This record gives sequence, C-alpha cells and structure tokens, in this order.
Amino acid sequence: MRLLHTADWHLGRQLHGHSLLDDQAHALDQIVAAAAELRPDAVIVAGDIYDRAVPPHEAVELLDEVLARLVQDLRLPTLLIAGNHDSPARLAFGARLMRGAGLVVVGQAGASPPLVLEDAHGPLDIFGLAYAEPALVRAVLGQAVHDHDAALRAQIAALGRDPGRRAVLVAHAFVAGGGESESERPLSVGGSGMVGTDAFAGFAYTALGHLHAPQSFADGRIRYSGSLLKYSLSEAAHAKSATLVEIDAAGACRTEDIVLSPRRDVRILTGLMASLLQAPRSEDYVACVIENTEALAEPFAQLRQVFPNLLMIERPFYAAGTAVQGAGAEALRREVPDLFADFFEQSVGQALSAEEAAMFAEIHDAWQKAQRESG
Amino acid sequence: MRLLHTADWHLGRQLHGHSLLDDQAHALDQIVAAAAELRPDAVIVAGDIYDRAVPPHEAVELLDEVLARLVQDLRLPTLLIAGNHDSPARLAFGARLMRGAGLVVVGQAGASPPLVLEDAHGPLDIFGLAYAEPALVRAVLGQAVHDHDAALRAQIAALGRDPGRRAVLVAHAFVAGGGESESERPLSVGGSGMVGTDAFAGFAYTALGHLHAPQSFADGRIRYSGSLLKYSLSEAAHAKSATLVEIDAAGACRTEDIVLSPRRDVRILTGLMASLLQAPRSEDYVACVIENTEALAEPFAQLRQVFPNLLMIERPFYAAGTAVQGAGAEALRREVPDLFADFFEQSVGQALSAEEAAMFAEIHDAWQKAQRESG
Repeated sequence: MRLLHTADWHLGRQLHGHSLLDDQAHALDQIVAAAAELRPDAVIVAGDIYDRAVPPHEAVELLDEVLARLVQDLRLPTLLIAGNHDSPARLAFGARLMRGAGLVVVGQAGASPPLVLEDAHGPLDIFGLAYAEPALVRAVLGQAVHDHDAALRAQIAALGRDPGRRAVLVAHAFVAGGGESESERPLSVGGSGMVGTDAFAGFAYTALGHLHAPQSFADGRIRYSGSLLKYSLSEAAHAKSATLVEIDAAGACRTEDIVLSPRRDVRILTGLMASLLQAPRSEDYVACVIENTEALAEPFAQLRQVFPNLLMIERPFYAAGTAVQGAGAEALRREVPDLFADFFEQSVGQALSAEEAAMFAEIHDAWQKAQRESG
Repeated sequence: MRLLHTADWHLGRQLHGHSLLDDQAHALDQIVAAAAELRPDAVIVAGDIYDRAVPPHEAVELLDEVLARLVQDLRLPTLLIAGNHDSPARLAFGARLMRGAGLVVVGQAGASPPLVLEDAHGPLDIFGLAYAEPALVRAVLGQAVHDHDAALRAQIAALGRDPGRRAVLVAHAFVAGGGESESERPLSVGGSGMVGTDAFAGFAYTALGHLHAPQSFADGRIRYSGSLLKYSLSEAAHAKSATLVEIDAAGACRTEDIVLSPRRDVRILTGLMASLLQAPRSEDYVACVIENTEALAEPFAQLRQVFPNLLMIERPFYAAGTAVQGAGAEALRREVPDLFADFFEQSVGQALSAEEAAMFAEIHDAWQKAQRESG
C-alpha cells in the first residue's frame, strides 16, 4: 500500500507582497506528475490547504483544478483535512457529493468515516481529523479537554477504529519536539499547543501537517511532509518535498522523499554590495544581507537590477547598537554636508571637490534658514 | 417531464440588519419537501444562490445541507447557475467532482455540457448559462458584444444545441418588460441591461432568475420563479413561490406555482399609532407607516413591543415639505416649552398643569442662560 503525503499548501499565500500562486501551481504540477507516475493508492493533504479562511478566488480555482486532475483524471482517492488556516465550512462545501467521486474532505471537527483502501493484505483505513481547538472538541465530543494534547487524544479515541485493521491517521497538530518555522501560525497563545507522539500509537503511519520543515518521529511512522513551498525566509535552508509512504502487510512502513523543485527558490545572500551586485541575475525570491558599514545609494533599487524579485535587504552593520553598528550610529549624528559628501562619493565614484562641498554647504544653509522661517 | 424551478435564494442576505438565515432554511425546507413529494425530473436554481461573492460560512453550510438533501438523499438531478451576486469561481468549486453525483453547477461563463434528462418522449437538454457581463462574454467568446442582449444571444448561439431535441435554458438576466423590485442589484449602470424575450425562441422553457417577483412571458414559456423570500419592503405584496414546469412530448409546457410560506412575513402596516399598537403581536418583519401628525414618544420602542422584528417606521405627516407635513414643519419652529407640553401629554396621558409648565419654563430659561455663558 502506497500513499503520497503532502501538507501545508497555503494556497493564496503571499511572500513579502509577492503572490505565490504561480509558484504553487508549479509545485502542484510536480505533485500531480509524481502521483501519475507513482500511482499511489491514495493522496493525502494534511491541512492548511488554503492560507486563510476566505482565500482569493484564484486559489479556489487552483485547488479545483488540482483536485480534478488527481481525483477525476488520475482516479486517485484523495483525502484532505482542514488545518488551522482553513475555514471548516468553506473547505467542506460539497464534501458529501464529492465523496462518491473519490474525494474525502474532512473539514468539520468530529469523527468522519475513514477512506478505506484495500490491497492483497486486506483493508487499510485512513482516518482524517480536521484541526479543532480544544474548546470546539469539548463542544463536539462533550469531554472536558483543556489543551491540544487532550483534545487530539479525545478525537482519536472517538474515531471508533477497529484495532485489528491497519490504520493511518491524518492530522494537523504541533508534535512535541518538532522544529518550527516563522510561517506557521501558533496553535495556542499561552498554552503549549503541543501533542505527545504517543498519542499516535497504534497507527501504521501518521501523516501530519502544520510544521513546514519535513521531519519524522518514531522511526518515520509519524511524519510531517513539510509545506509545498518555502513560506518564509526562515525556511530558506529547507529542502521541500512530499512523502511517499509504503505500508506492508504487517503495518510496518517506510518513507521516501519526493523532492519538489520550486519555480523560484527562496534564498538569503550575504556579502558586500559590490559582490552582491556581481551575482548572476536571478528571478529567485532573494533577501540580501549587505555587510557594508557605510551609507549606500539606493541599495534596494540597485539590487533589484540583479534580483527582480528581491524581498528585502538587511543592513546589520549600518545602524545604532553594537560595536560594529556604532559606525552607523555615529553617522546619524554627523552633519548633513558630511553625509552628502559620503553619499556623493559612493554614488558618483569620486570625492566631492572643496568647491562642490562649499556649494552644497551654502545650499544647505539656505534651505535650513528657509525651514526655520517657514516653521 | 417535470422540472422544479426556483431562483434568487440570496443565502446570507440580511433585511434591515436582521439575518434571514433561519427564514431561508425554512423556505428551503419547503422546496425540499415539494421536491420529495412531486419527484420532478430535475431541480433548477437560476442564479443568485448566495447574496454576495463571499457569503457568510453559515450560508455555505446551509447550501451544502440543502444540496445534499436534494442530490444525495432524494437523488434528484440539480442544476445551479451563478447569478450576478455569486462568485463564479467560488460557486463552481468542485463542480467537476460533483457532476457525477448529479449536481451540475455552472459558475463560469462559456458553454457547459447540458444536463440531459430522458423520458418516454426522448431526451431533453437543460442548458445552464452563468451570468456574465458583456466584457466577459467578449473575452470568452471573442465576439464584439456590447450589451447584455447581444451577450446573452452570443452565449446561446455558442451552446451548440441540437434543434431537433427539446431543450430548456436556465439564465440570469433582466428580460425587457419585467417588473423590478428594490432588492435586485442593477445589471448595468447606464445601459439598459435588458434582453429581448425573442432571444429565448426555440427553448421549450426558459427558467430565469434575477427579478424577484414571479412573472411569465410568452404564455409561460419564459418565466421568473421569483425569489425565495421577500428581500425588500417593495416585495411586501408579492406571493413568493417556486414553479413546477411540465413539458410534454411536443415541447409544449405548462407551469404551476408551488407557494412558499415564509417563517416570518414582510408587511407594511399603515395607521395611527393607537391602532397600530392594538394590532395582534407578530414576529413578522414589519414596517409601520405612522399617520399621526404630532410628535410621539419613542414610537419605535413602543411598536417593537408589538412587533419585535420591527424593521423601520415612517412618519410621512410629521416632517417639513408638503401641505400636510406643514404641521410638522410648524412644530419645528415652536418654542421648546410648547413642544415639551405636547410631549408630556402624549407620554403621561394628561396635560401639563400651569404650575408644571411654569416650572419647565424656568428650568429651560436657566439652561439657555448657562448655554450662552459657557459658549
């Protein structure tokens, strides 16, 4: 039995104001192509399908298209659960009518019948649990659960699974010990929001969503496939992938990474301006850490010539604070004519002559006088 | 061949700040019950399913529930089109996957394969056209259409229908000569937005949405079923209904009204305050036209005792302007002590004594003096 596990698509998300829709479509093409080639018994998407409760309509169209290709064209049973970014009601619209076509959407909290697969070794049940706050689990199950750990255990207990059958769980949760990225929205403010891995005992495999770095627990039996794309600069070093899971007759499993190649990578480049400007031109989403200590003329505009999708620049050595940044702090206290001389030299490439400096000082004085008078 | 035609559900709409969701669920229960009893060959909803592009999630849940009952529980083929209030992409999500279950959603502009029904007399094609602005039709069909009439005719021509087969058209449009209500959003600002009835020649029946009053053209072969509920006070006199259409072997049709009884009616009551206050208590959505010419103490609060869902009051004879309203205009020029005397009499039920009037005049003088000094 083979399952293709992916999660955290966050369709409709932006990165520093750049729409990622084309990047998401590009990565989803690879998921569909992998599904077509590998022919898994089912495809699993473990929550945060959309980036927000009301996604842009282009994201709705993209999901519609991808699901039609997986479920209708490739005839692959597909199971989606709602994550903490999804609207349960909006994601689950039409779920009952689509189930017959082979698409299982678990949007609302509470037990939903499993997707049942069959291989030579017998049946395998895939249970999907929608993300649910403890308060919602209390309301739905009528149990006094007060944190995410207890809430998830109560939901698992309520699944009513047959312990004699192989089973897979699909959930959206923060497993204790997992590594976070900056693009995940915390599940709990104050409380830990974490779930112990022993909650998943008895499942052949637990397909998780929420954490954006691919990572495994319990020898790979509990796994985050990771997100579709790098959704923050903190994920620049990640290798994003989907997970192909193989489950044998006894319920033992092994996983394999299906690497996803982004349309545009997310990279952080560090160096002096001169060397950054000599980098090969790239459409990647790039953040530049500029190590120069002095003032620079329009560094963002300059770097955007090389990196048209430049996300941001950082000037760690050109601001007040630390010893090194002291140079920057001092600059702020210098007089405007001095600063202009520096700026001129960096922009034009040669020093301001004494005559030019005098001319600027004169203009500056006149401007200051005018300011005082108008004030 | 029998079709149940309804339209303009506007799920999620409010009436003067009152949520109508329970009223909509109540009316939809009647549609489902009629469908269960009459067992039409298909159910048609001719656009404006939701009231806005992004409906509240409770409206999404209600539609999901109603469609599951019609399509899954009753196994009735159902066809929905997008109206001018719907988001094409959002309404059409999952359409390809739901078609197999018997639900046809035509959200996007352009030709969509018909829902084909069969009876003893042969096949009948039901073509759904989503509402589309002329500019969109130009883009999709590549034809130089500049108004709604030309746009709809171009869309109909592009359906590629077989003239030898009986066909029904489902559209969302403003037919020339149709009667408007206040709750319809104009399709066109400036241009007429209207479509001639001859555009529908050749269809056994045209099931229309957009106008909220049930109304027929061409001996009933072209019909607005009307909206699910009264969505404005201008519809207070409407009788809302769904339409049962019967189409014979030759393609001739006859229609029958399936009356919808609202959970709470929309009514306009006109009279003097004393008689309005003696009306039987009612949960209906009521607007009161109060004919009294004099000032009244908290008339809204008083009437809400009788009509807890009071929408608004109107005081046509208590404002400046016409001859009758002159009484009100005069009141505005009267001195405050005189106005207070009137107010006291109406509130307490007895006239202000000379002593009380003097006391009020004294207080009022002191207040006016204080106002002048502080100013």
